[in-house]
Amino acid sequence: MEKIVSLCKRRGFIFQGSEIYGGFANSWDYGPLGVQLKRNIEAEWWKMFVERRNDMYGIDPAIIMNPKVWEASGHVAEFSDPLVECKKCHSRYRGDQIEEVCPNCGGKEFSEAKQFNLLFKTFIGPTEGTSTTAYLRGELAQAMFVNYLNVMQTMRPDLPFGIAAQGKVFRNEITPGNFIFRTREFSLMEFEYFVRAEEWEKWFAYWRAEMQTWLKHLGVNLDHIHEVEIPDGERAHYSKRTIDFEYDYPFGQKELYGLAYRTDYDLKRHQEKSGQNFGEIPHVIEPTFGIDRSLLVAMLEAYHEEEVEGEIRVVLRFPKWMAPVQVAVLPLSKKEELMKPAKEILASLATHFRVEYDETQSIGKRYRRQDEIGTPFCVTIDFETLNDNAVTVRDRDTMKQQRIAIAELAEYVKNNL
Amino acid sequence: MEKIVSLCKRRGFIFQGSEIYGGFANSWDYGPLGVQLKRNIEAEWWKMFVERRNDMYGIDPAIIMNPKVWEASGHVAEFSDPLVECKKCHSRYRGDQIEEVCPNCGGKEFSEAKQFNLLFKTFIGPTEGTSTTAYLRGELAQAMFVNYLNVMQTMRPDLPFGIAAQGKVFRNEITPGNFIFRTREFSLMEFEYFVRAEEWEKWFAYWRAEMQTWLKHLGVNLDHIHEVEIPDGERAHYSKRTIDFEYDYPFGQKELYGLAYRTDYDLKRHQEKSGQNFGEIPHVIEPTFGIDRSLLVAMLEAYHEEEVEGEIRVVLRFPKWMAPVQVAVLPLSKKEELMKPAKEILASLATHFRVEYDETQSIGKRYRRQDEIGTPFCVTIDFETLNDNAVTVRDRDTMKQQRIAIAELAEYVKNNL
Repeated sequence: MEKIVSLCKRRGFIFQGSEIYGGFANSWDYGPLGVQLKRNIEAEWWKMFVERRNDMYGIDPAIIMNPKVWEASGHVAEFSDPLVECKKCHSRYRGDQIEEVCPNCGGKEFSEAKQFNLLFKTFIGPTEGTSTTAYLRGELAQAMFVNYLNVMQTMRPDLPFGIAAQGKVFRNEITPGNFIFRTREFSLMEFEYFVRAEEWEKWFAYWRAEMQTWLKHLGVNLDHIHEVEIPDGERAHYSKRTIDFEYDYPFGQKELYGLAYRTDYDLKRHQEKSGQNFGEIPHVIEPTFGIDRSLLVAMLEAYHEEEVEGEIRVVLRFPKWMAPVQVAVLPLSKKEELMKPAKEILASLATHFRVEYDETQSIGKRYRRQDEIGTPFCVTIDFETLNDNAVTVRDRDTMKQQRIAIAELAEYVKNNL
Repeated sequence: MEKIVSLCKRRGFIFQGSEIYGGFANSWDYGPLGVQLKRNIEAEWWKMFVERRNDMYGIDPAIIMNPKVWEASGHVAEFSDPLVECKKCHSRYRGDQIEEVCPNCGGKEFSEAKQFNLLFKTFIGPTEGTSTTAYLRGELAQAMFVNYLNVMQTMRPDLPFGIAAQGKVFRNEITPGNFIFRTREFSLMEFEYFVRAEEWEKWFAYWRAEMQTWLKHLGVNLDHIHEVEIPDGERAHYSKRTIDFEYDYPFGQKELYGLAYRTDYDLKRHQEKSGQNFGEIPHVIEPTFGIDRSLLVAMLEAYHEEEVEGEIRVVLRFPKWMAPVQVAVLPLSKKEELMKPAKEILASLATHFRVEYDETQSIGKRYRRQDEIGTPFCVTIDFETLNDNAVTVRDRDTMKQQRIAIAELAEYVKNNL
């Protein structure tokens, strides 16, 4: 894990949030490579689960909704974690996660657990005295339920169909931690899939299989995934069946995704509280995918160290669609006669692929950097290029080098991506 | 404007936020077509200004930053609007926007203007008494300045270079309004472009031209754009030159984008307040693009009404890259013999394009709906298809219909998009 955190910082994937001010509350900023990785994952998910399907309707709802939404959903009253305090050093912990002794001072006595609400509050309107208390959304799901009627009325879908969204979610976690695994501000991709009550088991099984397909597409070895059936009494009150997709993180087996059968609980609540008529109310299957956790797991799965000629090579074996940089263009030296064709090649590749140009340091060091950021192809322009109008293309995974004519380069890269 | 708002609702572009609860504070949710339009605009901007350039570094920073950031930037002390109250009916307004009489009751007397801070407050940490006050970001720019050192150290760019981001921004506006034009929660795309002090005028002119290029790409007639030079005394305190790109909205000429020369003000402040050494400090050119306003303007520009055979045809003439649906697949009737090939065509097109399938109502009504949502091509499968293995492709703009062999359909659509 330390190696991943260090690589993320060193190569510009993920920086500590507000780092120059000493950081802030376990927040993280995606850097130049991290933002591209995140966008690639988001776009691929959207393509697979929304664009390429005819039964899924995307939305992009506001983060701050009418507070009545969170009253109806039960979040204002019940979305809380048990908070305990060490009686010796006054450190605070989640009561359901703390061991017998305080990790800070070794104290053994804790206060009674107090329920602590996880919704972030803010105030809308012109003056504090007359303002309305509102909440940053604590989950995406409610926005889909609140827009159910809008989608029904405008798109007129038949059952089964889904409403999908991606976006930021905020939870005032008592103990965030483990890098981007648990943060107070994070991103989810999720859909609510509406089905006939009697068909819920069929669709639960269907989406369970689709989630496995997505995981494989993300480059995850399914041996590292544990589908944990949540027993009666431990599920959220609205759920009649929940499977947690847990992953073998370096810090233990913990949650990655979730799949829940939410029955008709949410739509019924909103129908009742809003006074709107929803007509016949379907049941709901909800697959939830954490974006930050997807990215973390993709990096953990891609990370490899191997010995090459007596040295350790670090390589991120990202699936090719996911790599932040797809092609690196590297002139062998800084001589003008090489830089000119290199920049021409760069410009022509840049219209098709995510490219990077690097002319610094030795070619070996540049290969090493591209391996570390997971670039599938390095294109090297050398003095032979001036004679044969060809370049050397190096493959990230096999390290094999192949001579390719410049005229065929774009086609070659396209076919091999 | 009413026509656009109505079309947005009716066709699933934009819904009132929390509509089933009576809405909330002028917030809006993007529906199935709106989210696709928004994503297309965001992705195209990112491709043009980040991916295809070698001098731009994207980031995706946290929305909630260390509050010291907003103290250093001056937002905590100075990011405010003048608030006045009608003495008769107590309605509140922005002092710099109110006319002589109260729009609510006609009252003519107002209270003294009071400065009202626009940052949304929230509280981080386990209990309210001991929590830290934090702010939802009021602009994107500070996140780029705060990450300047991170980008310098990991990517080692030479001047000039930029740091870019897209994302949500929150301002507790006193009087939001005009649909998605002014909302308390909105999205920006922006970059800070770092240059040598003596070159700022050159790069200011360069980015001004690039902003015009983007506007044309968005389908905007530049005759509707007014580049307004903000005079001394009216600019933000950090700016030595600002041009507002204003647009002729149906509700008047108002701001769309901004271009500011921010000097070295921000980096110097952060260097001083954080105690970090930034080395030699460059100057900054900042082009700012509102995402919601881009979408609104794209819709206003695309909207056309024309008389066709005695009826009014409403058509959104989006640039083809932007259209939420690129191809509609329409079997002439619901007969099984047509639906089968239609669904095969749908499946094969769906791997390349954003497609929609529609088998309801008359073909005329379906064309009308696709025109209203701006779909460039409608593919109709009729009984002749069963004989000639060809389909009718209708062009949104010319309404011309062409017979295309199924085998050549994907290639035809691709070449014409």
